[in-house]
Amino acid sequence: MSPDGSGVRPAEEFDISEYLKHSTDAVNAALDRFLPRAKTRPATIHSAMRYSLFAGGKRLRPALCLAAAEACGGSREAALPFACAVECIHTYSLIHDDLPAMDNDDFRRGKPTNHKVYGEGIAILAGDGLLTQAFEIVVQGKATSRYSHQTIVLELARAAGSLQLIAGQVADLEGEGKPLSQRELRFIHERKTSALLCCSVRLGGMNANCTPAQLNALSDFGYYVGLAFQVIDDILDVTQTSEQLGKTAGKDVTAQKATYPSIVGLEKSRKIAKQLTDKAFRSLQPFKGKAVALDALARYLLERNK
Amino acid sequence: MSPDGSGVRPAEEFDISEYLKHSTDAVNAALDRFLPRAKTRPATIHSAMRYSLFAGGKRLRPALCLAAAEACGGSREAALPFACAVECIHTYSLIHDDLPAMDNDDFRRGKPTNHKVYGEGIAILAGDGLLTQAFEIVVQGKATSRYSHQTIVLELARAAGSLQLIAGQVADLEGEGKPLSQRELRFIHERKTSALLCCSVRLGGMNANCTPAQLNALSDFGYYVGLAFQVIDDILDVTQTSEQLGKTAGKDVTAQKATYPSIVGLEKSRKIAKQLTDKAFRSLQPFKGKAVALDALARYLLERNK
Repeated sequence: MSPDGSGVRPAEEFDISEYLKHSTDAVNAALDRFLPRAKTRPATIHSAMRYSLFAGGKRLRPALCLAAAEACGGSREAALPFACAVECIHTYSLIHDDLPAMDNDDFRRGKPTNHKVYGEGIAILAGDGLLTQAFEIVVQGKATSRYSHQTIVLELARAAGSLQLIAGQVADLEGEGKPLSQRELRFIHERKTSALLCCSVRLGGMNANCTPAQLNALSDFGYYVGLAFQVIDDILDVTQTSEQLGKTAGKDVTAQKATYPSIVGLEKSRKIAKQLTDKAFRSLQPFKGKAVALDALARYLLERNK
Repeated sequence: MSPDGSGVRPAEEFDISEYLKHSTDAVNAALDRFLPRAKTRPATIHSAMRYSLFAGGKRLRPALCLAAAEACGGSREAALPFACAVECIHTYSLIHDDLPAMDNDDFRRGKPTNHKVYGEGIAILAGDGLLTQAFEIVVQGKATSRYSHQTIVLELARAAGSLQLIAGQVADLEGEGKPLSQRELRFIHERKTSALLCCSVRLGGMNANCTPAQLNALSDFGYYVGLAFQVIDDILDVTQTSEQLGKTAGKDVTAQKATYPSIVGLEKSRKIAKQLTDKAFRSLQPFKGKAVALDALARYLLERNK
């Protein structure tokens, strides 16, 4: 039995950097194949789509998708189209979130945001292009006896749609500068973060023709990893220096952003983060030893700078 | 034989207003069923999506989709999800095209545009929501022995994607105020107009499990109707008064927009319009008497104010 009772080999024995490097390379190569060349006419749009897609993202969602496929007995190779589709959705949402009419960010990962390079019109269209491309890519992954292309497209469309990912961004926009309740904050986190993480691992499972019980376990895993990640992010913003974070610390306080520490205090936030993290790891129990990579990815995400 | 040699009963015998009214009612009812309620949380986004979707659009693309299904021996009822998906794509593209960063239009069909009512951030997200919804809806239409859900999703994603619909908007944006060649202008029309018209009728045909020959005929029909429509639109802009048009005449000249009359002159434009229109009607020949509604819809679109 592992130290945390999850029944999964602890991540220390697993080389997560090596795993992430491998999966990132595979995902980047596949994305490069799926996307039109940068010079394809009209060149502006394809160069703009590629600019953000290859701007150094960590490819965590694709890695989770591939790891989920493996946990259910599938192969990483077969799950690549699903992993790439999820990354296109993630990138489109960042491009649109960064726009002046939304979060108005000039930089992301140290590089100028899409609209700073290509202008707002092209940035909006580059986001639209990647969102549309995600559906073109996802149906190029194989359907299985349990999961048809219909089910797969519904999974992606619902996670990315106006009840999930888009709903999260709307609630976030509308909540700016307002005192939010813990419930309202969770509503945002569930949709802005958990929805697509959940979809990433579920699609991975579907690609491996997973059992309904495995699909449920993956849903729980994605849900709790997403929530835990957000609470920990809020905590780190107030407890770490900018140097430790690698980005401006105390940003949430300055922006008068509702966070777990500002609503329930630092101590209770830590308790909540611990509970959510435990639930995330426990949801991997049904996979026994097969979820090593998923477990390691969750540790990588949730055990930052503790 | 019909007077124009198309082998199709002339549209005069067909009550196009009645047909359009019926199909519009059916499409509106189906869209209302497919879309989340306006009050569904977050209410802003769903109310914004519905605002533009129910802003009085003529539902020409859905009507063409349903008529194509009928021409291939299918039913209008079964083709409704495909018709609704195409209309969601069309509406999203209008919302995004109207944004200040693109065409900067304050009014559409006499009503304030989405961003004038809901602000730019929500308008961008409402467009994203409708684009995503289109894929959720399209897979709710039935697959057939010849056309799987994979084929159907690819059809929609490619027509709406960065090589077609989005490419057209990019080329249009980039061509503003520049002298364009006839070839460049056709590049824009093919993508901004023909791509989605083509997709509308092709999806209708697929819903009726049409033969490959029928699918080709529908592709030609959608392609030529789209091009002819645009050339005629350009001609009317210089030959008609604002009163006759029901919108500001001479807008293209004022905006220094490249048009067929400005590139090849009015006389040659009329000749081109005639050729394209003839090709559109001729492409319906394989359907014999079954394409009455398609023929009438094309006449409705192409025989305006002659």
